[in-house]
Amino acid sequence: SIITQLADLFSTGSLTGRTLLITAGPTREAIDPVRYLSNHSSGKMGFALAEAAVEAGARVILVSGPVNLATPAHVERLDVVSAQQMAAAVDSRIGEADIFIATAAVADYRPRQVPAEKIKKDQPQLTLELEKNPDILAGVKQQHPGVFCVGFAAETTDLERYARAKLDDKRLEMVVANLVGSATPETEGTFGSETNVLQVFWPGGETHLPLAPKGQLARQLIPVIVSRYEQRDMT
Amino acid sequence: SIITQLADLFSTGSLTGRTLLITAGPTREAIDPVRYLSNHSSGKMGFALAEAAVEAGARVILVSGPVNLATPAHVERLDVVSAQQMAAAVDSRIGEADIFIATAAVADYRPRQVPAEKIKKDQPQLTLELEKNPDILAGVKQQHPGVFCVGFAAETTDLERYARAKLDDKRLEMVVANLVGSATPETEGTFGSETNVLQVFWPGGETHLPLAPKGQLARQLIPVIVSRYEQRDMT
Repeated sequence: SIITQLADLFSTGSLTGRTLLITAGPTREAIDPVRYLSNHSSGKMGFALAEAAVEAGARVILVSGPVNLATPAHVERLDVVSAQQMAAAVDSRIGEADIFIATAAVADYRPRQVPAEKIKKDQPQLTLELEKNPDILAGVKQQHPGVFCVGFAAETTDLERYARAKLDDKRLEMVVANLVGSATPETEGTFGSETNVLQVFWPGGETHLPLAPKGQLARQLIPVIVSRYEQRDMT
Repeated sequence: SIITQLADLFSTGSLTGRTLLITAGPTREAIDPVRYLSNHSSGKMGFALAEAAVEAGARVILVSGPVNLATPAHVERLDVVSAQQMAAAVDSRIGEADIFIATAAVADYRPRQVPAEKIKKDQPQLTLELEKNPDILAGVKQQHPGVFCVGFAAETTDLERYARAKLDDKRLEMVVANLVGSATPETEGTFGSETNVLQVFWPGGETHLPLAPKGQLARQLIPVIVSRYEQRDMT
């Protein structure tokens, strides 16, 4: 539509000269050579944001877990599998970034021990001992406090409370939150779906992006990020 | 090539009047609304077999876990997520089948309890209690002993020993086995790859299908299955 085209014109160039590092998709944590733990995540929101950021003039580095998505034009993509690999990839490129957007659904835990051979299924029960994965976003903010950090929060309940806690605990500039699972009919099927509803929180403010295709939400979110980024030294 | 076209001509019709039920892909076992356990499996081998069976004249019902593959022409596809859903789908259609080919990488275990809300990551460690999933193939053979049953075995070591044990324990007509993981350079990247190497075992015999594209392997495997199927009452 003409409105969208005008919006495009206005947003074009707002990120010229800036580098964005974006993570997307799930991670997979090996249990053994054939089994793994993962999180539901299609990667669509992160890929849509990468595309929208390029449209706004940014240089974009996209670190992606295993997804079935084509790389948007002019985006540099690094593929990883596990949370530890994603942390290493981010660590290797964060020095170039002005803005870090962590959309990836990183597995919080990984199996403590990973046998070299397939676990046989002789036992009626099995106990998996898990340990924490590195918190990639918290690590970036601690070691690179100057980078403008946007976190994502997928919650099944108490969305605002958890999103605000994440914002404060990790001292982020912004948290983009959405309800997942079948918490409401509106959000049912968020994983893998083409649409989403987003609640955006920053210190002292928030905005709501109603149900829309992920590509459209990404184009709405980029100006919100740019606006907060440009005010970053004034708050 | 002309050879392939001739091979097609010869195989055409060998399964006319027969119904094949094929399972394919991984299953996903919910840990909570955002996390799950799964197995590496692209589903490509099962989909290739479905296509090759249709070419040989069969009616094919394909029960598939979550994969990113197009349904082959003339194949009836039922999509499932968990092992229990796959077992129910197979149970509902096995009565129509002459031949059952279980290529799916069914999760052997599922979390014993699945909380309705996302598990928070406050704990440095987490213990997951798992319990056995139904053994779909063993169940089919027990309840429908007349169905010609072909199992698949993906092993990281001792391929023949495990494949022969599966053949005997479940009283199957055939087991198709392949090494997975990085056990040998030849098999590295079997998961999701376009090629594979197969070892086929039946009571008293075996054959080897060397490295080839999965579509080609499927077209080689169907005549092996048909040959054994036609001799089933003579052994």
